[in-house]
Amino acid sequence: MQNDPLAARLAEVVGAAHVLTDPALTASYTTDFTRRFGGPARLVVRPGDTGQVASVVRICAAEGVPVVPQGGNTGLAGGGVPRSGEVLLSLRRLDGLGPVDGTARQLTAGAGATLTAVQRHARTAGLDFGVDLAARDSATVGGMAATNAGGERVLRYGTMRANVAGLSAVLADGSAIDRLSGLPKDNAGYDLTGLLVGSEGTLGIVTALRLRLVPRPPERTTALLAFGSLADAVASLDALRSLDSLELAEFFLPTGLALVREHTGLPAPFTEPHGAYVLVEYAAPAPPVLDLLADLERLRDAVVAADSADRHRLATYREAHTEAISAAGVPVKLDVTVPLPDLAGFVTEMESLPATPYLFGHLAEGNAHVNLLGAADPEAVTETVLRRVGRAGGSISAEHGIGTAKVPWLDLTRSPTEIAAMRAVKRALDPYGLLNPGVLFPARPSGQG
Amino acid sequence: MQNDPLAARLAEVVGAAHVLTDPALTASYTTDFTRRFGGPARLVVRPGDTGQVASVVRICAAEGVPVVPQGGNTGLAGGGVPRSGEVLLSLRRLDGLGPVDGTARQLTAGAGATLTAVQRHARTAGLDFGVDLAARDSATVGGMAATNAGGERVLRYGTMRANVAGLSAVLADGSAIDRLSGLPKDNAGYDLTGLLVGSEGTLGIVTALRLRLVPRPPERTTALLAFGSLADAVASLDALRSLDSLELAEFFLPTGLALVREHTGLPAPFTEPHGAYVLVEYAAPAPPVLDLLADLERLRDAVVAADSADRHRLATYREAHTEAISAAGVPVKLDVTVPLPDLAGFVTEMESLPATPYLFGHLAEGNAHVNLLGAADPEAVTETVLRRVGRAGGSISAEHGIGTAKVPWLDLTRSPTEIAAMRAVKRALDPYGLLNPGVLFPARPSGQG
Repeated sequence: MQNDPLAARLAEVVGAAHVLTDPALTASYTTDFTRRFGGPARLVVRPGDTGQVASVVRICAAEGVPVVPQGGNTGLAGGGVPRSGEVLLSLRRLDGLGPVDGTARQLTAGAGATLTAVQRHARTAGLDFGVDLAARDSATVGGMAATNAGGERVLRYGTMRANVAGLSAVLADGSAIDRLSGLPKDNAGYDLTGLLVGSEGTLGIVTALRLRLVPRPPERTTALLAFGSLADAVASLDALRSLDSLELAEFFLPTGLALVREHTGLPAPFTEPHGAYVLVEYAAPAPPVLDLLADLERLRDAVVAADSADRHRLATYREAHTEAISAAGVPVKLDVTVPLPDLAGFVTEMESLPATPYLFGHLAEGNAHVNLLGAADPEAVTETVLRRVGRAGGSISAEHGIGTAKVPWLDLTRSPTEIAAMRAVKRALDPYGLLNPGVLFPARPSGQG
Repeated sequence: MQNDPLAARLAEVVGAAHVLTDPALTASYTTDFTRRFGGPARLVVRPGDTGQVASVVRICAAEGVPVVPQGGNTGLAGGGVPRSGEVLLSLRRLDGLGPVDGTARQLTAGAGATLTAVQRHARTAGLDFGVDLAARDSATVGGMAATNAGGERVLRYGTMRANVAGLSAVLADGSAIDRLSGLPKDNAGYDLTGLLVGSEGTLGIVTALRLRLVPRPPERTTALLAFGSLADAVASLDALRSLDSLELAEFFLPTGLALVREHTGLPAPFTEPHGAYVLVEYAAPAPPVLDLLADLERLRDAVVAADSADRHRLATYREAHTEAISAAGVPVKLDVTVPLPDLAGFVTEMESLPATPYLFGHLAEGNAHVNLLGAADPEAVTETVLRRVGRAGGSISAEHGIGTAKVPWLDLTRSPTEIAAMRAVKRALDPYGLLNPGVLFPARPSGQG
């Protein structure tokens, strides 16, 4: 591989230090962090700016070599790691941050900036970035845009798409678009920004983002609520949202709580066991007062955090789920949305699968993270769950994208007409199928789009 | 025309009463309400549901006859009226409204429902639709989506794109997509909804919408603020927005105020004249208290509405601009965004044009409605203004779209790469150029996309 003429050609553009072919150096790029996805890369290239990204893409396009773009490599659907000898293009060096524009409430960030870096920078100006998620220290805003990441605060601020005012990107032929002005009103043609957000690197490579910022409410009130059932929790959602300052509403269940307590050693949050738990957080200029809890007919019990240690403890019951489940085994992980009226029924049905289900997620969006332990046939159980979601009119991927992992099931959630329209758009912008082939749609032989 | 075989064929689908060929009946469809745009239509067809829209499009596609979709015919860029013998497809009969889903805070509306009808329906459930604009009684939500309408409350709620959770649409081949589930988290492929919003009928015909609703804050405080200059008003925006409940911030100038007073007979709002005026409205669960005005260094004077008659009077100073200007002559009307730091300079430069400028608009977005009276050469003055906007990195169409009116200047605001990408998407979804030809891009001979 060291004599690969493509490596030499790319080294002229990005410098030899940024073209990696030694497997010891490429390993962290070619396998995802769960070690479920990955494959050989022809090489890893680390351009330093948009111009270098464009040059790399042009060179690869001229050779007919497909390119897999990668941000923080925190994806969960196999969409950001190589499959079969592609060039892996890492965006991590594009991590610059521009000044915070306090009047426009915007900030320009390189695609390789981590979410944590963006949050810190925004907070120096008394603002915040609306999207937050657990992988914040590694996840890059470019990767988050490519997958339209959501997270815990979608309820209040929406997904990445709602928080990206503009972007720059390199297209499949190496040409670049620059929409970083972030104009809040701009009706001059198609929304290429919105089209690229969530396209998982199949239409273009995002190199920088104009991010919307939000005021950072200084006062927070966190509470853990206990309900008799998940249906009761869903039925209480309107009331919980009657305070505009609701920032998150995360549900989990007795089975998950038991696993978390076992893993963390935390005491039981309530003296009695309950059917469903919801972690809520309100954030506002003045300390939010949860008078509304007194009127919640279906509420069985509640604990409101008295201080930040308390808040941390309550949040851990929810946040330690992923770790506790992984400690107990290798789960089948699915990330789905079902219409809210169907959420409780869906969760109950998971109990009859040939596996042990642990479910938790984002209540207001009907977004359940389905973790299944001990499944003898992971493919079969995946198929069963996703078919159930499709029948309910839900989404087989709420947050993580289709990647390569869910390609076989795209037709459960998008109609033949929609898939045909998406394919037509893909062919229009990437006629030779060079950008992230095998993601979203099955890979086709090069040259056939 | 009564013997047009296409009319007969369409009448079989929609009923003879809904295929109009008599010029006395088609006139209100074939000319826009400003009478600046319009042309002959082969016929006007009024389908009654999505299935009929699909049939009409299929029949027209088979004959190679282009179709111009139309909502409330309130557009200002000539994008919704025929040019040269197209079929005019009116969506007005698709005006059904589904139940308000209070938990999801969503509502399904037919494309032909007016904004007023949607607002009334949402308010029966204690919610509201976030987008509002003056043409609310005629503008349809389908047309508003097709043009990504903005209006006064973009500051708080965003444009149509941010308020459309999903849609159904008929594509150029008569196939239909149905994304009305409104799932708040759904990362399974390209955002076809967002792509269709703002595409001005060139990629598909929107037939129904899943609209996001917002809580309707019961208490409002309206104030008219006087500043020494527009630059002072821009510099005060951060402070005005420090209360989250700011819903609108509309600016106007002494010249426009004089015209409005002449037209309406209203008294002067302040004892002294000032350099710039900003109408603000705050809306919240409790009556907003504008303590912040006391700390506004640059504020020269202010009047806070004491009752609803007062509020109406203050709002009229801004809202009567369009009518007052039209009463004074036939203006060249342009609708542009410039980056906020450039807004005051841009407005000043308009005074040196060979015409009398009246400018007003949406302060927070740098969105100026430029009205020019007495221009001897409307084309030349338009070109001068739009070139100035392009140089500043602004948008030549903030709210109204490109339509047919701004096609010659698209390249002032979008790069060759972006235009090539947009054309590729257009060709991909409408290879024969049947949907709204001549809008966004120059029309091409049929069959060449």
